[in-house]
Amino acid sequence: MVEEFPVVSLESDALEAARLLASNRLPGLVVVDRHGYPHSILPASKVVRFVVPIYIQDDPSLAGVLNESVADRAADALAGKKVRCLLPIEAPELPSVQSDDTILEVAAVMARMSCPLVAVLDGDTLIGVITASRLLDFVLMPH
Amino acid sequence: MVEEFPVVSLESDALEAARLLASNRLPGLVVVDRHGYPHSILPASKVVRFVVPIYIQDDPSLAGVLNESVADRAADALAGKKVRCLLPIEAPELPSVQSDDTILEVAAVMARMSCPLVAVLDGDTLIGVITASRLLDFVLMPH
Repeated sequence: MVEEFPVVSLESDALEAARLLASNRLPGLVVVDRHGYPHSILPASKVVRFVVPIYIQDDPSLAGVLNESVADRAADALAGKKVRCLLPIEAPELPSVQSDDTILEVAAVMARMSCPLVAVLDGDTLIGVITASRLLDFVLMPH
Repeated sequence: MVEEFPVVSLESDALEAARLLASNRLPGLVVVDRHGYPHSILPASKVVRFVVPIYIQDDPSLAGVLNESVADRAADALAGKKVRCLLPIEAPELPSVQSDDTILEVAAVMARMSCPLVAVLDGDTLIGVITASRLLDFVLMPH
């Protein structure tokens, strides 16, 4: 039931991470620390902040009257940054389960934390994720 | 740039909505009111709550020692309910943009609300959504 999912580290290049989100149309990426242990989720919506100039975030009505090229500045805004810099201060926690946990244990963690996905570990090693829709698929659909 | 996205109404059948999430592996569904106007997002993670018995939500450690069939009770728990009953009290708001808004206006709304998708309206008519990763794709990738 475990799914593969693109993983980046806190020290990965921010622009490459944003392109990974974009080209795979992912709602988020799994971020691991330097030991490869799950750290958090980087939601695509948080990366969008970096393509909007600060003065427009402060006054969104300006977005309608300015004719700024978003594409030109987006790559500039992300270039040279690390994934660590993209994470919001309260980055969504990525709960983890063990590969031999039961479906009910996984569902209980997901329900309690209200999280869209959980990391699946074999001991200390990340082997994939389970998304909420994958869990519903397993539980509700004939297999 | 607008994407199609499955839509359910507040009065749609909860079990069918859960199966739609499951079979399409969606992180959430767009929920509209009885006039077809965007109401909120139903995240898959919120539906998972309904497959976990209350006493396990209260004491997750029980999930490891009980051998309850999740599949058997999941369909029962959702049967006969409306989508309205699945929505959390603070369901994620679904912001909307107009189909002739600029990319920068869409990005500004997404950044401000920190939302994974926005509804796209043509006047009062919902014509689709734009997800955060679709927006990043448009902005960061060569087209």
